[in-house]
Parts: sequence; C-alpha cells; structure tokens
Amino acid sequence: MRLSRYFLPVTKETPADAQIISHKLMLRAGLIRQTAAGIYAWLPLGYRVLRKIEQIVREEQDRAGAIELLLPTIQSADLWRQSGRYEDYGLEMLRIKDRHDRDMLFGPTAEEVITSIFRDAVRSYRDLPRTLYNIQWKFRDEVRPRFGVMRGREFLMKDAYSFDLDEAGARHSYNRMFVAYLNTYARMGLRAIPMQADTGPIGGDLSHEFIVLAPTGESEVFYHSNWERPAELSSVDFDDVDGLQRIVSGYTADYAATDEKRDEARETEIGDALRRSRGVEVGHIFYFGTKYSAPMGLKVQGADGGEVVPHMGSYGIGVSRLMGAIIEASHDENGIIWPESVAPYKVGVINMRADDEKCTAAADRIYGQLCDAGVETLYDDRDERGGAKFATMDVLGIPWQLIIGPKGLEKGVVELKNRATGEREELSLESALARLAG
Amino acid sequence: MRLSRYFLPVTKETPADAQIISHKLMLRAGLIRQTAAGIYAWLPLGYRVLRKIEQIVREEQDRAGAIELLLPTIQSADLWRQSGRYEDYGLEMLRIKDRHDRDMLFGPTAEEVITSIFRDAVRSYRDLPRTLYNIQWKFRDEVRPRFGVMRGREFLMKDAYSFDLDEAGARHSYNRMFVAYLNTYARMGLRAIPMQADTGPIGGDLSHEFIVLAPTGESEVFYHSNWERPAELSSVDFDDVDGLQRIVSGYTADYAATDEKRDEARETEIGDALRRSRGVEVGHIFYFGTKYSAPMGLKVQGADGGEVVPHMGSYGIGVSRLMGAIIEASHDENGIIWPESVAPYKVGVINMRADDEKCTAAADRIYGQLCDAGVETLYDDRDERGGAKFATMDVLGIPWQLIIGPKGLEKGVVELKNRATGEREELSLESALARLAG
Repeated sequence: MRLSRYFLPVTKETPADAQIISHKLMLRAGLIRQTAAGIYAWLPLGYRVLRKIEQIVREEQDRAGAIELLLPTIQSADLWRQSGRYEDYGLEMLRIKDRHDRDMLFGPTAEEVITSIFRDAVRSYRDLPRTLYNIQWKFRDEVRPRFGVMRGREFLMKDAYSFDLDEAGARHSYNRMFVAYLNTYARMGLRAIPMQADTGPIGGDLSHEFIVLAPTGESEVFYHSNWERPAELSSVDFDDVDGLQRIVSGYTADYAATDEKRDEARETEIGDALRRSRGVEVGHIFYFGTKYSAPMGLKVQGADGGEVVPHMGSYGIGVSRLMGAIIEASHDENGIIWPESVAPYKVGVINMRADDEKCTAAADRIYGQLCDAGVETLYDDRDERGGAKFATMDVLGIPWQLIIGPKGLEKGVVELKNRATGEREELSLESALARLAG
Repeated sequence: MRLSRYFLPVTKETPADAQIISHKLMLRAGLIRQTAAGIYAWLPLGYRVLRKIEQIVREEQDRAGAIELLLPTIQSADLWRQSGRYEDYGLEMLRIKDRHDRDMLFGPTAEEVITSIFRDAVRSYRDLPRTLYNIQWKFRDEVRPRFGVMRGREFLMKDAYSFDLDEAGARHSYNRMFVAYLNTYARMGLRAIPMQADTGPIGGDLSHEFIVLAPTGESEVFYHSNWERPAELSSVDFDDVDGLQRIVSGYTADYAATDEKRDEARETEIGDALRRSRGVEVGHIFYFGTKYSAPMGLKVQGADGGEVVPHMGSYGIGVSRLMGAIIEASHDENGIIWPESVAPYKVGVINMRADDEKCTAAADRIYGQLCDAGVETLYDDRDERGGAKFATMDVLGIPWQLIIGPKGLEKGVVELKNRATGEREELSLESALARLAG
C-alpha cells in the first residue's frame, strides 16, 4: 500500500484521557478513533491487525476441534429470562426496546442463545460432544470506559461453548480450550499465565483467567518464577484425553493467582521464586455443568435410552483487547513493535528522497517487487523528509524497514532495519528482497 | 469436515412464515436459525457461505481502490443531529439509551460516522480522493420482518463512502463502484441489472439500484432484453477515468427501471424487446454532493489555498441478503445449487455403506486425500442409508458429489455427480481426484 493513497492519520498529540501506553500508541499510529465514549472505529491499519489477531484465534479454535458459527448481536430478553439471568445481569447489559416495545439487548455474552439453538437442533447422545464458537462484537456498558480498547464498551470477542454428556467429557473440552488458548497467545508473542479465577456472572465451578503481564495491567498477580520462561506451542492431539490432561496439569502445577485467589501457604512454600506483577486479562474459561442446560430444557437421549442433561462450559478471548495487550507487552519509546504474526505489514519501504527521480524510480520498483513476491508492504512514497518517515515507521511498528536513499543506490545497496532490535544493515537489493520474501 | 462431528441441523419441515424458497431452503439446509423476529444465527454451513460472499465483495472493493476499515455498530445520536437526520429517520432506526441516559442507536448506515472521522483526519486536497468501506452488521427495525435474511432486521452490509474534491471526481468514484458492483455479482453467478433509483433517506441527485431477477422479488422491474445476456467481468483500469465512463455509459444505455422510475416513451420505443419481471435489490449506490460534508463541517484546503467542501457518495451491498438472492436464482426442487465461488464446500463425499469396513476405509482415505489436496470437502460418514445421504447433499447444494459404494469399489470406480446438471459419471478414483483438485 502506498501511503500517499492510504488513510492513515498519524498524530503526535493524544487526548488527556489516554493514560496507558497502548491507548496512546493506538491513537498516535492511526489504528483507532473514538466515535463515542468507549466505542472505537478501527481505521485501516488497525483493522488489518485486528483481522490478523482474529485469524490466529480462529485457526487455533479450529485446530482444537471447535466449529465456527455466527450469533447475532441483538438478543431477545426472553431467552435471558429462561436462564434467570435477565434481572441478575447489572447495568453493564445494554437493554433495548424495539419498535413493538419488546425487550431486547445487545449481547454481552451468548450462553442463552447458543443453548437454545443447540437445544432445538439435537436429539441424541450421538450429536455430542460439540464445541461451537463465534467471533462477534459484544457490548458491555462500562460505567467508566477507559484504557482505549482494553476497557471499551463495544468489543470483539471470541466466545466458545462446549456441550458434553458428562462432567468427564466437559473436563476434556475445557482442557482443549485451555491448551488452544496458550497456543493462541504464544503465536502472538505473548506469555499468558492461566490463573484460577472467580466465575462472576457466568457462574460455575471451575474457571481460569489468562493473564498477560504488563505494568499497566488492571489486576495484581502473583506467580512462580517458572512462568518467566518464554511461551511455547504445544503440538498435541486434541482428541488425546490423557495427553491433554497431562499438559494442563503440567501448566497448573506452577503457582499463579490473582489478588482474590492468593494462597498464602503456597506462596510461603515458593519463597524466593514468588513474583508479583500486574496483568491484563486476555481470556477467561468456565465449566458450569448444567447451569444453563437444565433451566433451558436442553436434554438428549442417552446411549441407554435415558435422558441426559448436557454439561457445558464457555470460553472467551477478548480479540480487540488483545491488540492493546500486545502493544503493552511490545513497544519502546518510539512506538509499537509488532510481532510479525500480527503486524499490519511486514515491510515498510522508505523512499528517502521523493524529490529525486532516480531514487523514486528505484523505490517504486522495489515496492512492486515486494508486492509481486506476496510480501505485505507499506510504502512511504510521500513527499516528506527522511527523518519524518523514520519516525512514522517507528511509531507504526512495522517489523522491517527497507530504506532507499540516493547514496546507497550509487553504491548498489539499500538499508534494512529491524524495528525490534534497531539493527541496521547495508546489503544489496537482491539480498534484501531474498531475505524479506523468505 | 466429517458430518458426524459437524453441527448441521438439516430439517424437512419449515415454519409457515417461511414463504419464499430461499428462506425455506436456508432453514432446511441448516444454514440459519431465527433467534428473534427478523434476527438470525448463522449456523456453521451458512456462515461459511456468508464469509465467501463477504470475501468476494472485499476483493472487488480492494480492486476498485477502496480502503477497508471497520466502524462500530453503536453510534451516538449527536452525530445524526449534526447532519439533521436524527429526527428524519423513521422507526426503522433502533434507538437506544445507555446507562447514562445518552441517546445512542444501532447504525442503519454510517454517513455521519465516516464523515466525522474523515473530517477530523484530513486537512489538504492531497488527502483526497479516498473511498473507505466497511463490512459490518447493521440494524433496521423493520415493522414486519420477513423472507428470512432478505428482509431481516440485523443484516451484514458492505458500505463504502467516497470523498472527492469536486463533482467530476465524485462521478469517477461513483463509476468505480458501479463497475466493481457488477464484477462482484458476476463472480457469484448473478446477473444484476443497474436501474435508476430514488434516493430515499440517504438523499442526493444520482442513484442506481442493482437488481437480481427473481420471481419472488419485492419490486416489479422493466428492462430491455439485452440484459438477458450472461454477466461478464470487466477487466478495467479503475484509474482510467474515460475508460470507466465508457463502460458505465455502455451499461446504462440499455433501458432498465423499477416501477417508480418507468419511462413510457422509452418503453414504447423498445417495443417487443421490453421485459417485465420481479427483482431483488442487492446493492444501491448514491452520489449526494455536499449533503453531509457541508453541515458536518468537513472541508480541506484546496490546491489554490482556498477552502473546499468535498463531494461524497455512498455505496451499499447487502452481503447477507445476497445469500438469499443467490439461492432464489439458483436452486431446484431438491435444494440449493451453489455456484462454486460461494459454495460452503466444493465436494461432498458420500460413503454409501458406513457399515461396510472396506467401503468406509476407502471413503476415509479419499476424504483424507481431498483434504490434503486443499479441496474443501464435506464427508457424510454417518451411519445412514445412501438415499438419505443423497437427499442431504442435494438440499445442501454442494457442487460435486463423490459417491463411494462397495459395487463400484470392486470395479475400481467411484461415481461423480454434478449437482447443477445432475450428470453422473463413473470414473477411476485417480481421475476423480485429479478432476476435483484441479
């Protein structure tokens, strides 16, 4: 994409209510614009990142055996009356009356909707187990929205729902998501720590929050130093019940707890290895048995002919919030540092002298070659000073900057800068293209 | 995907309010489920089709030079007060009060939001022209929702907005979308006819509706028989102002009008070549000058230093509605007939004898080979009679059925059925795989 034809309003100033670094940088880099309190438009560059995050979430859900569908944003209040949650759910639920004065709401979560769909579709134990998920915009009417997309009102969430014949099956479905979540975060360069958690308005017996460490995080967290090792991907057969349980047990053996769930005895045991930090919640999973299936009349015929009320769980990832979490975890004083897996573009081409014909011709050609090779490239072809272009690419956080200037061209070289390390290297154009297209 | 592990509630009965064929077939084929009046969940198979339609729309927008972003669903009423439309827009607008009693709404369209974002981001004539688009859920509170997703309340729309320095530029932006729309529909196997149209609540001077012919369509339409030729793709340079105008003039030379816009003089002229039918609106484009930019204070500095108020247009495609339109245009008495470009799966593998070990082993292997070759395949591995499986694949509309039975296997052949033509052919497994993977 040529910057001269793009829509990328980079700014220097940020409003006073942008307190945390991810919020400031998302505004400065032209990723988002607020359109109402806690409600954001995703500008072209931000939407590219959001779609990459969404796609990683999708791929890892699919790999874990979950099936994607899409639920509507507007729900009928009647469904929530069936589960008994309509009155319980506080002011965060955006309640709506339609033109016929029927009670509707903008879904903050979808246990009721999915339970009713599943109830009306299945008859037999052979239709289970299933885990269904969707990635859809949700609304929670926060009393004081803040921190940009980290605590906005309209947000993109992946929510999955599992249906099993018994508790053991539900535990396996829970474990699938547990491992899928860690893989999801690892692919975005994030170390997320699963912590035992309260179940809140979702309900249930078993729950983990996944927390990314960040000094500006909303919660105080405590964990064993073992968690400081880098995140890795588990390549596991998701149908292997025991294998999956071993992985989950391995992870949960190391102490990690939020403020509400601290265990003093275990902390004393750990001693010097105890770490204290702040963290951002990027996922939350729940097992809640028959809390929704029983009152909503979801039942199937069991293998023995008897009636079975399925056990359920639900599993959320804050997709839009993840963008903030990634920036909190990966930035410097000059701007964002995107991990390649979610970067809006892999390469930023900088034409140092847009007023120099030869230099512009070379930069145009290189940009074309990168596009032809399928490398996602942002090309700063504007008539601006080189210094301003460096600053822009730095704040945008594009992983590789390819700098084309008249002096280098005379010597037959271009400069390649790694945004994360700051390392710069002069190399021939051919080598640079080979490196970037690899 | 194995049907035994999928979530695909195929049904025989449809409710009495499902009057038109696309609505009936979408319910029967397990593509959608109604969750409230005029509000639908997209089940896994339906969501696959929706994403394919969405992707074609996206690719053709990108090709025409439009830039994607994402606008929120919930908008502030204040923006609509700036344009003067808040009071004008009728009961179809879903009005909402948030917890602080502020007036909000679920966006039925987004001229105000995009104008305000663009206003706050641009300063100079160099920032224009731009066309920005987004594909997002909209809500229109229809008094009597019906025809399934064709006239639902929550629907997926692609809406684009163009900003130009003058009327001539705006006309070119309009032409870009005009041609991009025809290409979009052609890729889905649809012949859509552009017809001069009223501008309604969007406003403006120039407007075309794109209408797909269907006997169950909502509008009566009149057109020259020349429109009966099949749709073709225009491969055009979208920056070529004159070339694009010639294409648009070529298309609009042939008479086509909705009931409100009939021209008796021209119809008399056409004589025998006049056709009368019913149609479904699948797109609507508008040029409306400074209707939003002027009252909302969008202006930039012109090349001569003076102030310029940009000319705008907006361009909508009903993405979810298109699924209904495609089914209206492509089905038979046995079910849906998907064009390959939007089919949820390209191939349906039918194991005729799930109780026969050899047959099942062969079907399993073939399914694996198709998946490995990257062919999107739905595998009916359920323990059901062959006849029931045929009926299911027919109603689902998968373009190719690959039928594996014990008798054929003895002869070393499988059967390949083309859903559209009904043609069946016996061929070796190798030939079948080569054909389908091609």
